[in-house]
Amino acid sequence: MKASVILAHPYEKSFNHAIFYTAVDCLKKAGVLVFAHDLYAEGFDPVMTVDELGKDPTEDPLVAQYARELTDSDLLVFVHPNWWGQPPAILKGYIDRVIRPPYAYDFDENAQGAPATGKLTGKTGIVFNTSNTPEERENNYFHDPLEYLWGRCVFGFCGMEEGFTRRMFRVVADSTEEIREGWLEEVGLIIERVLEGS
Amino acid sequence: MKASVILAHPYEKSFNHAIFYTAVDCLKKAGVLVFAHDLYAEGFDPVMTVDELGKDPTEDPLVAQYARELTDSDLLVFVHPNWWGQPPAILKGYIDRVIRPPYAYDFDENAQGAPATGKLTGKTGIVFNTSNTPEERENNYFHDPLEYLWGRCVFGFCGMEEGFTRRMFRVVADSTEEIREGWLEEVGLIIERVLEGS
Repeated sequence: MKASVILAHPYEKSFNHAIFYTAVDCLKKAGVLVFAHDLYAEGFDPVMTVDELGKDPTEDPLVAQYARELTDSDLLVFVHPNWWGQPPAILKGYIDRVIRPPYAYDFDENAQGAPATGKLTGKTGIVFNTSNTPEERENNYFHDPLEYLWGRCVFGFCGMEEGFTRRMFRVVADSTEEIREGWLEEVGLIIERVLEGS
Repeated sequence: MKASVILAHPYEKSFNHAIFYTAVDCLKKAGVLVFAHDLYAEGFDPVMTVDELGKDPTEDPLVAQYARELTDSDLLVFVHPNWWGQPPAILKGYIDRVIRPPYAYDFDENAQGAPATGKLTGKTGIVFNTSNTPEERENNYFHDPLEYLWGRCVFGFCGMEEGFTRRMFRVVADSTEEIREGWLEEVGLIIERVLEGS
């Protein structure tokens, strides 16, 4: 089994980093081959080029590497804070540039407007988020956009209709060290549960 | 009256560009002072730095300019395609880096977790989107995330509870020139209507 684990946070001592390292450790201990990437540390460029609008291969070797690993992975894990109900721009750019046709989804260029064909079918997605918004306000005012953004717009679109797990840890800003330790234990339990189910 | 008009599309002959030029022309003809920015053409860097996580001023002169103009504008207009239910990464980075405390919103550093105070109150937002997803699938499967992303997560969060107009033009991929001309007329009508109401 193989997994891509992708992190998007600018501060190297962030709780997102702690989640990332915990997830990578758990997967490795379970014998999974892990492709782990800290997008900030690797200097990933999130700006999709005009040449990448169609199906042509990218000329960016880092994008090409991420794409090969994505296709090769059974498990796709994303770790990021909730910024404006969305991922940070650097991770939005991973979605724009790496999750591309013809390998992540495909479409018939002669039937534009027809639904695309998802090509990541059978893979499992896990998303770990951090947030400083209380649950009630997230759900009732903001409508928790990250749930549909990942579950439907990304994974669903690419054919991963089932097998999507998401956990938002909050409120990080006023959490104690004890609470955060409990959250990291939960990261491990979620990974274990997903591995057992797959 | 002043307006910021922000465009995010990599292809200079895109329909998004046509919307952008139409909006800018309409505003100028109405006597509005327009700050017009094509983020791709200006080489905007969407990656928020670790130093920008708090309230300190940015060191990027382009971000500082956009921020001054944002604060100074009565009308905020964004033009972008629907990519994964979200803006392209380059525009997500504008949101991350330009719409920042303490001028766009603010929070009490001693009461983390408390709701932020929006500071763009009284401004009006307009969002023009293009999409290749049919309306029924957008609303029923994807749940049209852009509506809440802009209306609540960005404008609402910053205190612009009222005065948000959004129009998604679709399906662009199989539209005729005649249809697109009608859409551009509609862009002008929406701008006029908003100017009359404000």
